[in-house]
Amino acid sequence: MSYETQLTVRFHEVDSYHVVWHGHYVAWFEVGRNELASRFGLNPDQLKEIGLMAPVVDLSCKFKLPARYGDVVVVRIAMQRCETAKLIFNYTVMRDKEVLAEGSTTHILTDLKGTMLYQIPPEAKRRLELMFASLGM
Amino acid sequence: MSYETQLTVRFHEVDSYHVVWHGHYVAWFEVGRNELASRFGLNPDQLKEIGLMAPVVDLSCKFKLPARYGDVVVVRIAMQRCETAKLIFNYTVMRDKEVLAEGSTTHILTDLKGTMLYQIPPEAKRRLELMFASLGM
Amino acid sequence: MSYETQLTVRFHEVDSYHVVWHGHYVAWFEVGRNELASRFGLNPDQLKEIGLMAPVVDLSCKFKLPARYGDVVVVRIAMQRCETAKLIFNYTVMRDKEVLAEGSTTHILTDLKGTMLYQIPPEAKRRLELMFASLGM
Amino acid sequence: MSYETQLTVRFHEVDSYHVVWHGHYVAWFEVGRNELASRFGLNPDQLKEIGLMAPVVDLSCKFKLPARYGDVVVVRIAMQRCETAKLIFNYTVMRDKEVLAEGSTTHILTDLKGTMLYQIPPEAKRRLELMFASLGM
Repeated sequence: MSYETQLTVRFHEVDSYHVVWHGHYVAWFEVGRNELASRFGLNPDQLKEIGLMAPVVDLSCKFKLPARYGDVVVVRIAMQRCETAKLIFNYTVMRDKEVLAEGSTTHILTDLKGTMLYQIPPEAKRRLELMFASLGM
Repeated sequence: MSYETQLTVRFHEVDSYHVVWHGHYVAWFEVGRNELASRFGLNPDQLKEIGLMAPVVDLSCKFKLPARYGDVVVVRIAMQRCETAKLIFNYTVMRDKEVLAEGSTTHILTDLKGTMLYQIPPEAKRRLELMFASLGM
Repeated sequence: MSYETQLTVRFHEVDSYHVVWHGHYVAWFEVGRNELASRFGLNPDQLKEIGLMAPVVDLSCKFKLPARYGDVVVVRIAMQRCETAKLIFNYTVMRDKEVLAEGSTTHILTDLKGTMLYQIPPEAKRRLELMFASLGM
Repeated sequence: MSYETQLTVRFHEVDSYHVVWHGHYVAWFEVGRNELASRFGLNPDQLKEIGLMAPVVDLSCKFKLPARYGDVVVVRIAMQRCETAKLIFNYTVMRDKEVLAEGSTTHILTDLKGTMLYQIPPEAKRRLELMFASLGM
C-alpha cells in the first residue's frame, strides 16, 4: 500500500524546454510527504510541538519522462523501516500509468536545538507506527 | 543617488516563453532591498535583533521588456520619505540602458508579535536616516 | 460572480517568519487565473495555438493578513472589461471569511513575435466573451 | 582542480526553521554548472544552437550542515569522465572551510526532439574536452 496525492503542474514550474524544471520535484515530494505525515501528527509543525525536527539529510531522484504544463500528476509515497532513528520516504511521480520520476528522501530526527537523536522518542514512535500501519507495513 | 545590485538571470527563472517569469522580479527586488538594508543594520535578521519586523503590505510592478536567461541585470533602488511609520522602496530593473521593469514595495513596522507601530523607534530611525543619507535623501 | 480555486499552503512557501513569503502570492494568482482561463481555451498553451500571448504588464498586491503553513486558502477571481486589447484580473485571497490579500494583474495581447495587438482577434474575443459570461459580466 | 562560484543566501530561500530549504540547493548546483558550462559553449542556450539538450536524469544530494540567510556560500564543481554519452557533475557547497552539502547530477545528451544520443557529437565533444582540461582532467 502507498499514499497518493495529486498535483496539477503550474505554469511557473515549467522551464524554457516546456517541461517541469527538475528542482520542482523536490517540492512535490515534500507536498506529498507532509500531507501523509499530517494525518499522523508528524508534519513539521506537529513535530515541533513535541520538540522534534526531521531535516532531510539525503535526497535522490531519477527523472524518466518529462511532466508538462497542466499535467495532472500523482505522487505515490511509500516508506522503509529503518534500524536507526531515521525516516526514509520513497516517491514515484506518475502521469496515468507512466512513471515520470522516482526519488527518495532520508530524514534524521533532532531536538529543537538540532542535536541528532539516536532513538525515536515514544510519542513520535507511536505516531510513526500508525503511519506505517496506514501504508500496510 | 540610488543603490544598485547586479544579478545574473538563472536558468530556472525563465519560463516556457524563454523570458523570466514575472514573479521572480519580486525576489530580485528583495535581494537588492536586503543588500542595501544590511549595510545599515536594517535587514530582516538585524531588525529582529531590535525587536522589529518590516512586512511588505503593498507590492506593485510594471513590466516593460523581458529579461532572458544569462542576462546581467541591475536592480536600482531608491526610497521615499514617508510621514508615517512606513518604508517605501522603488525599484528599477535595468539591462544596460534598457528599463525592464519598475516596481515598488511598501513596508510597515511591527513589533515581534506583529502589532503595527505608529512611530519608528529611535534606534531604527537612526539607522534609517543613515540609509536615507547614503541615497542622498 | 467570481471564479474560485483552492490551494493548500506548502511548507517551502513559508519563510523564516512562519508566514507565506509575499512573492508566492504571484504564483497563486496565476494558478487561479490559468485554471479559469483553461476552461475557455485561454490558458498560455491554448492562446499559443491561436497565435497569441498574454504577458503580464502590471502587477499589484496588497497584503492584509499572513497565510501560514497548511492553511487552506481560496483565490477568488473577477475580471474587468477594458476598452482596449487588455485583460485585467482581480484577485482576492481568502482564508474562510478573512481577506489575506487583494491583487490585480493586467495583460496585453501580442502575436507570437511579441508585437502588441491593438484589437482582440475574433477567436480570442469569442472565448473571452464566454469567460466574461461565466463571471456574470 | 575544480570550478567555484559564489552565492549569497537570499531571504526567500530560507524556510521556517531559519535554514535554507533543501530544494534550493538544486538551483545552486545549476547556477554553478551553467556558469562553468557557459565558458565552453555548453550552457542550455549554447547547446540548443548545436542541436542538443542535456536533461538531468539523476540527482542526489547529501545535506551536512544548514546554510542561513545572508551566508556567502561557494559551490565547487568537479566532473567525472564517462564511458558513455553522459555528463556527471559533482558539487560541494562550502561556507568557508565547512562542507554544507555534497551532490551530483547526471545528464544525458539528446537531440532537440528529445531522442537520446549514444555518442557525443564532435563539436560538443571538442567543447567538453576544453571544459575537462580547465578542470585538470
